[in-house]
Amino acid sequence: MPTLVIANKCYSSWSLRPWLLMKQLGMAFDEILIPLDLPDTKEKVLKHSPAGKVPILIDGDVTVWESIAIMEYVGDAYGSPVWPEDRKARAMARSVAAEMHAGFVGLRSACPMNLGKKYASRDRGEVVARDVARFSEIVRDARGRFGVGGPFLFGAFSAADAMYAPLVTRLDTYSIALDATIRAYVDTILSLPAFQEWRSAALQERWVVDADEVDEDAIENYRKAA
Amino acid sequence: MPTLVIANKCYSSWSLRPWLLMKQLGMAFDEILIPLDLPDTKEKVLKHSPAGKVPILIDGDVTVWESIAIMEYVGDAYGSPVWPEDRKARAMARSVAAEMHAGFVGLRSACPMNLGKKYASRDRGEVVARDVARFSEIVRDARGRFGVGGPFLFGAFSAADAMYAPLVTRLDTYSIALDATIRAYVDTILSLPAFQEWRSAALQERWVVDADEVDEDAIENYRKAA
Ligand SMILES: N[C@@H](CCC(=O)N[C@@H](CS)C(=O)NCC(=O)O)C(=O)O
Ligand SMILES: N[C@@H](CCC(=O)N[C@@H](CS)C(=O)NCC(=O)O)C(=O)O
Repeated sequence: MPTLVIANKCYSSWSLRPWLLMKQLGMAFDEILIPLDLPDTKEKVLKHSPAGKVPILIDGDVTVWESIAIMEYVGDAYGSPVWPEDRKARAMARSVAAEMHAGFVGLRSACPMNLGKKYASRDRGEVVARDVARFSEIVRDARGRFGVGGPFLFGAFSAADAMYAPLVTRLDTYSIALDATIRAYVDTILSLPAFQEWRSAALQERWVVDADEVDEDAIENYRKAA
Repeated sequence: MPTLVIANKCYSSWSLRPWLLMKQLGMAFDEILIPLDLPDTKEKVLKHSPAGKVPILIDGDVTVWESIAIMEYVGDAYGSPVWPEDRKARAMARSVAAEMHAGFVGLRSACPMNLGKKYASRDRGEVVARDVARFSEIVRDARGRFGVGGPFLFGAFSAADAMYAPLVTRLDTYSIALDATIRAYVDTILSLPAFQEWRSAALQERWVVDADEVDEDAIENYRKAA
C-alpha cells in the first residue's frame, strides 16, 4: 500500500491535491503527517524526499514528489482514470492543472489556505481579482466545452479538480463574491465526502502556522481548540 | 502539422523547453514567434491561449499551454518517448520536471535566461547558491541511478532534460562554478545540435527585453546587432 506524506490539513494546500485525487479514485493509502513550520519540519521532510517539500508519495521503492508528478504517477502506475477520457479534454485538463502548479501566485500569497477560519468579504486587490477572474474563466470554459455528464470541470472528477480544490477553499474562506456558475462548482467540491473528511481532520488540528494566518479578524473560527 | 507558439529565443526560457523536446524527438512543427514585452505582446498571445502565456501548442483543434502540459501531450497524442522507459526513472523524471515547473525561483529571477550575453563569475547570493546546489544534486542523483546508457539525466534524452535546459544556459551565461560531473552534463546540453540551432536563431534577434538584462557589464556580447 502506498504512503502519502502530507502536512497540516488545515493549511497544506499542496498536500490536499493528491490526497483528494487518491480518495476520489478509491485508492487505499497510508498517511504520514509532518506539521509545518516546526523546528524539525525540514529534517523530517528531507528524510522522505531530497526536494524537501510535501506531498511525497512512497510506493515500495519508488518515491515521487510534486503534486502534479504524483498525479501522473497514479495514472501511470495504477492505470487509474486521473485525467479525462476524451483526448481534447485531457489536453485542456493538463494545461489548466499545470497553470495552477506554477501560477495563481497573487491569490495564493494574499489568501493562504486556512480551513479553520472564515473572513469577511472585502477588496483584496487587483492581483487577487485577476486570479479569481482567470479561475472563473477556466471553470466556465472547461464546463462549457467538456462538462456534460457531471458537475466537475471536465464532467467526471479529474486531477484538474484536485489541483484547483485548495483555490476553491480560499474562495470560501475569504468570502469572495462569485456568480452562480462558479458558486455551483465551488459547492460541488466543498461538499465532496472526501473533502469533508479532510476538513474534519483539519479542524481537529491544534497547530497554528502564523505565516498562513492573515492579519485580520475572522468572522468564523471553526477550530475552537487551536 | 502542429504549431508551437513561442517568444524570443534569446530570452524565453519556457519556450525553449517544449521546442527542444520536440526537436529531439524529431517532430516536424511550425513556429510562431511573438516577441515579449512589446505593446501588442499580450493581445497576440491571448489570440492563441486564454492563459496569456507562451509556449502554446496548436494541433488541429487542440490547444495546449504550459510547458509541462505540452510535453505530456506530445507523449500522449504522438506516442513519443517523452519520459524514460523505466517506470522508476519515469517517476523521478516527472518529479524533477515538476520541481522545475514551480521552483528554482531564486535562480530564475536573479539570473534571467539571456543567450546573448556572458557575465563574469561572482557571488550571486544564497538563494541562487541553494538552487544551483539542488540542481547539482538532481543531476548527480538521476545520473547515478538511471544515467547508464547515455549522457542525459536518465540516460537517453527526456522531457526532464528539456525542462532543465534553460537553467543549464544560465549556469553558462552567469559563469557559475561547477564541478566536473555537472560541467559534463551542462556541456552535453549546450552542444546538442537542436540547442545550437535555437541559440543561432537567438543571436540573430534584435529585440532587447530590459527586464531580462541584469544591471551588470557583460564579458561577452554575442549579439553584436542588438
Ligand atoms: N510545487 C510543490 C509545492 C509543495 C509545497 O510548497 N509544499 C509545502 C507545504 S504546502 C511544503 O512542503 N513546505 C515545507 C517547506 O518548504 O519546508 C508541489 O506541487 O508539491
Ligand atoms: N508556467 C508557464 C510559464 C510560461 C511563461 O511564463 N511564459 C512567458 C515567456 S517565457 C510569457 O509568456 N510571458 C508573457 C506574458 O506574461 O505576457 C509554462 O510552463 O509554460
